[in-house]
Amino acid sequence: MANIKKAAVLGASGYTGVEVIRLLQHHPKLEIAALTGHSRAGERAGDVFANTAHLGLPDLQDWKDISWSDIDVAFACLPHGASQETIVEILPHVDTVVDLSADFRLRDPDLYENVYGRTHNFPEILETAVYGLSEWAREPLANAKLIACPGCFPTCTLLPLLPLLKDDLIETSSLAVSAITGVTGAGRKASLGLSFTELAEGAHAYGVGNHRHAPEIDQIVERVTGQKTTVSLTPHLVPMNRGMITTTVVSLKKGRGYNDLRESLKAAYQNSKFVTVLSEGEVPQTRHVRGSNRCHMNVFQDRTADTAIVIAVIDNLTKGSSGQAIQNYNLSQGWDENLGLDMIGFFP
Amino acid sequence: MANIKKAAVLGASGYTGVEVIRLLQHHPKLEIAALTGHSRAGERAGDVFANTAHLGLPDLQDWKDISWSDIDVAFACLPHGASQETIVEILPHVDTVVDLSADFRLRDPDLYENVYGRTHNFPEILETAVYGLSEWAREPLANAKLIACPGCFPTCTLLPLLPLLKDDLIETSSLAVSAITGVTGAGRKASLGLSFTELAEGAHAYGVGNHRHAPEIDQIVERVTGQKTTVSLTPHLVPMNRGMITTTVVSLKKGRGYNDLRESLKAAYQNSKFVTVLSEGEVPQTRHVRGSNRCHMNVFQDRTADTAIVIAVIDNLTKGSSGQAIQNYNLSQGWDENLGLDMIGFFP
Amino acid sequence: MANIKKAAVLGASGYTGVEVIRLLQHHPKLEIAALTGHSRAGERAGDVFANTAHLGLPDLQDWKDISWSDIDVAFACLPHGASQETIVEILPHVDTVVDLSADFRLRDPDLYENVYGRTHNFPEILETAVYGLSEWAREPLANAKLIACPGCFPTCTLLPLLPLLKDDLIETSSLAVSAITGVTGAGRKASLGLSFTELAEGAHAYGVGNHRHAPEIDQIVERVTGQKTTVSLTPHLVPMNRGMITTTVVSLKKGRGYNDLRESLKAAYQNSKFVTVLSEGEVPQTRHVRGSNRCHMNVFQDRTADTAIVIAVIDNLTKGSSGQAIQNYNLSQGWDENLGLDMIGFFP
Amino acid sequence: MANIKKAAVLGASGYTGVEVIRLLQHHPKLEIAALTGHSRAGERAGDVFANTAHLGLPDLQDWKDISWSDIDVAFACLPHGASQETIVEILPHVDTVVDLSADFRLRDPDLYENVYGRTHNFPEILETAVYGLSEWAREPLANAKLIACPGCFPTCTLLPLLPLLKDDLIETSSLAVSAITGVTGAGRKASLGLSFTELAEGAHAYGVGNHRHAPEIDQIVERVTGQKTTVSLTPHLVPMNRGMITTTVVSLKKGRGYNDLRESLKAAYQNSKFVTVLSEGEVPQTRHVRGSNRCHMNVFQDRTADTAIVIAVIDNLTKGSSGQAIQNYNLSQGWDENLGLDMIGFFP
Repeated sequence: MANIKKAAVLGASGYTGVEVIRLLQHHPKLEIAALTGHSRAGERAGDVFANTAHLGLPDLQDWKDISWSDIDVAFACLPHGASQETIVEILPHVDTVVDLSADFRLRDPDLYENVYGRTHNFPEILETAVYGLSEWAREPLANAKLIACPGCFPTCTLLPLLPLLKDDLIETSSLAVSAITGVTGAGRKASLGLSFTELAEGAHAYGVGNHRHAPEIDQIVERVTGQKTTVSLTPHLVPMNRGMITTTVVSLKKGRGYNDLRESLKAAYQNSKFVTVLSEGEVPQTRHVRGSNRCHMNVFQDRTADTAIVIAVIDNLTKGSSGQAIQNYNLSQGWDENLGLDMIGFFP
Repeated sequence: MANIKKAAVLGASGYTGVEVIRLLQHHPKLEIAALTGHSRAGERAGDVFANTAHLGLPDLQDWKDISWSDIDVAFACLPHGASQETIVEILPHVDTVVDLSADFRLRDPDLYENVYGRTHNFPEILETAVYGLSEWAREPLANAKLIACPGCFPTCTLLPLLPLLKDDLIETSSLAVSAITGVTGAGRKASLGLSFTELAEGAHAYGVGNHRHAPEIDQIVERVTGQKTTVSLTPHLVPMNRGMITTTVVSLKKGRGYNDLRESLKAAYQNSKFVTVLSEGEVPQTRHVRGSNRCHMNVFQDRTADTAIVIAVIDNLTKGSSGQAIQNYNLSQGWDENLGLDMIGFFP
Repeated sequence: MANIKKAAVLGASGYTGVEVIRLLQHHPKLEIAALTGHSRAGERAGDVFANTAHLGLPDLQDWKDISWSDIDVAFACLPHGASQETIVEILPHVDTVVDLSADFRLRDPDLYENVYGRTHNFPEILETAVYGLSEWAREPLANAKLIACPGCFPTCTLLPLLPLLKDDLIETSSLAVSAITGVTGAGRKASLGLSFTELAEGAHAYGVGNHRHAPEIDQIVERVTGQKTTVSLTPHLVPMNRGMITTTVVSLKKGRGYNDLRESLKAAYQNSKFVTVLSEGEVPQTRHVRGSNRCHMNVFQDRTADTAIVIAVIDNLTKGSSGQAIQNYNLSQGWDENLGLDMIGFFP
Repeated sequence: MANIKKAAVLGASGYTGVEVIRLLQHHPKLEIAALTGHSRAGERAGDVFANTAHLGLPDLQDWKDISWSDIDVAFACLPHGASQETIVEILPHVDTVVDLSADFRLRDPDLYENVYGRTHNFPEILETAVYGLSEWAREPLANAKLIACPGCFPTCTLLPLLPLLKDDLIETSSLAVSAITGVTGAGRKASLGLSFTELAEGAHAYGVGNHRHAPEIDQIVERVTGQKTTVSLTPHLVPMNRGMITTTVVSLKKGRGYNDLRESLKAAYQNSKFVTVLSEGEVPQTRHVRGSNRCHMNVFQDRTADTAIVIAVIDNLTKGSSGQAIQNYNLSQGWDENLGLDMIGFFP
């Protein structure tokens, strides 16, 4: 059909890549026209991910061998660094690039260099990227050419905190986020530290005091509040494949109660298809949003009157990455943001 | 729309019930009009399964309170015993009942009594039920009124073995099936033996020598081969939610090789959308069919020339239960059997 | 031998009970002389826990049928409420009772009633109980008659925080603890919410804003600092059997750095056999203390100079419960606190 | 003490190596005097396995730097190939070498070459190795110099089958073993296929029709029965760290019933400390032997009178490897075979 857009998935041998493939199976206006895979060019999709073998997908190619004029949109599921190098080549030839890497998230190239340990080679392009926290970027996403999808921790942190900050209900200082994530967040690679035997039956924190997603959170909080912020973020890795929780103890502004926070969130997301503020007292569980593009959140009274506990859950691969990427593309096209994304959480 | 059929899900508080709900979200010709739940009548669907809260599903009701004349098809996800009692009441009022329980699988009421420890009260209805191993029942399923969906072990055992038996490639005697299943097969209930702490980090066999699905397998093998059969079936419970493997060491008929078996399977399923015979040497993995209605299978040369190893995998809740139920209903209506069921395996 | 003490385990059908049994296997001065189990009296130990079948343990009895004059020490692994009722009967007849329940942890009976929803019937005995956070109670534990073992969250929270508070390095206000626990902490019982299928492949917070262990932490912080305190505690349940993490973002007192905190912990525990302050930058992992009585901890520089992140891990069943109970008894007898407890973490 | 033997662990950076370390902690007559690690020589034990950091173990060395004259026994936890090369150098200098690799298991060097794809360079030493299936080798193990510990699958298969074969109760032909194993059996290495994300939430067979342990089983069955045998062995990998099940459907000799098999096993192992034939109808579970040197087994009536189902469970790292290695050394020294190995299964 003339109005079906053609998508390329760059980095289709990784988990965010195959998650884009999974989600696009049910997208009525978007089809997969090309797949790339750095080290696996020439292989069949089914050899890289056996669950896709029957789909008749194109073989994986080197991205340089793709006829980019036939592609409408590229979903770049590449490692940071490699992502910017590839995107800059492709960008002139396609209508839209949706970047799932970290390369265009931070507006400040010096900050990028500081956080990712490498120079950003395309600061002028950096400025043009739209930061795609979908629910907070519907307008800038319209007709966006380059979309930088947020990291999973920023997504799961900012969705519940931004309304509270914008409505001036909580203190900007002392934002301490404790987070839990499933293992798919670390990507698909041979690594002793990621092996089943090292990770099963245990849990541990990582990136303590210096996780790369913290400056990204700062940047957006500052953009919304106008105040310089340094969040604390401690992620913990637990033995499950998918799922993310952020738990933040927030200091209430004078005269505010936890219920004001709940009302703020409900108002902020009343027209959002993917964000649900749960019933009073109901605790968000990652398993209920598993494999979906949804975010469940809630606010709880803490033991002291002047603090509250804000909890949100997402699937790190879906709303935290590939699902939000598609949501962003939908928004860029003026489509229903739900296209291809209306599945419920995969439970049990 | 006039041509959307209305479905009731009986037993919507169990796992096969919610799996029907999940799958019907994407069915273009079928919508959920009623949900029942024995002990949870009056509750909202979202209180029973939080992942469904945003769907606008009907509340759970007692099945006696449903206006059955408004329902086209009932998916009965009830315990055996309760299932037959309910179905016999509903059957006159709806076009189709798809029973996911064991109540109408065994044709012989005495065998039913022997296996399930209770008299079958409706032997005359028993005779009318179509045994819905979809790929082997496309004709009888057309316009079927009462469909008895196979058990998960019979599905995962018969799909790979029936072509081999029909093509007279393997011995009917000495069929010894070793199986692995995820925990969802045991249903949703409060039980110490099913608690996380008792099941994590270990595995064990169960139903050894007397699993209820064995006579069901016998019945179908006998129907296809005309020979009296007593299969051996040993299921093992392992710490995962979904997934099933059957591994059968088969004795080849004289002059046959394992590759004849592969060819037999490929021929049998060349037009089946859900069954894939993998490439030579490729081992089926449950994770690749997880959450899908697919069955992956393969045949391997054993260490002696006269035996081969047949391995098949399904998701016990999908192809092993709710997915096959919908596939059967699709077939009963003359629809594409793929409707609502074309998702790929949920991996990772 | 004359100098082998005889132990009774009350509530031997639960997880803390069998953990006492496991640990006492290697205790040179203590042997199991009696087991009780409320609903399972009369059963063999091996029928209740198959891993103990070959040990020649006594059968489970009703506690009223035990000849208490033959018992030196009772380890009470009972639910709160039941624990106090039983202990008050036994206490006159044995030398020592080590209570693993919550019944004698809170010194204030009104607070107990408030937290546990039932009147404390023995406030006069409450006053005599020694709160057995072993490393902080070596003196009071000497010759103690009734020992109240701390909860698992208080143990894992207080061990790293008490030295910092005592050394006046961190603010007492704003102690916000985010915790992770394995499922064994919820006990051994038939419960839908604890079933494998409900808990696998997901995570969630619970007891948000009102966990019963929070007032217990307050009590001890206040005892050490002399300041009224209200900690924030958010536990998260993740799919593993054993293990606990506490992560606390602490505000440093003026002029203090995270390394002062590390030094404080190292000084506090330099003579403690079970507590290790890890090397700079090394993150504690639950799997490394699994099944052991050990606590690993460390302090990390946070992103702002005036905060630090304190992380500790234990096995909730061992140092968090049964292991500490035995450690406490060892201390009460003047024995090496290591007796029976010198196993390394069970990894992998 | 003069009568404490000194042990070296070769390959202490792998899982069987650290399991030897764990078990030797409680061995009264054996202490660790040296550790080696191919790629990690020079590192501290605690950097390789954090759970051992407090033990005061020697640093890892290159095996060539060890003063072998100070060592009584070497536990070789090396990959096959590397194992033989190292052992041949060490053997003249120590009293005993216990080899946990496959290098000295197969008596026939041609078979070794065929199975392991490399020439065996020391066939003359091969002949001197004692195959250490402990319960079946107590006499040859006495004063053995080189002990070849069985593979985990052979251990878990042969323990239940050998008595039945020796007592002539079952057919030697048609031994089809279906097995389940935890992931630690694959060793400690960076491998995509062994990563958590690839293995969690699914199961699959591997080594189908050609697993290396099958010829090892053949060899011992032939040694006991005098009959040429070719067993069928299909292992399945499931998401748990430790544990192994073998399930074998056996053909009974004429006139024999499953209870004859149970009696045979009970008689065979009545004096064995580690092998338990469970009560009639009780199913072995891996979790009950987890971390212990125990083997639980049972026999069940199958659905036909002439077959029975034999099930056994072990911990693949303990009785299946490092535990049996120590048991073998105990036997070689004429010690109680229980030394260091009397822990119960680690459950929950």
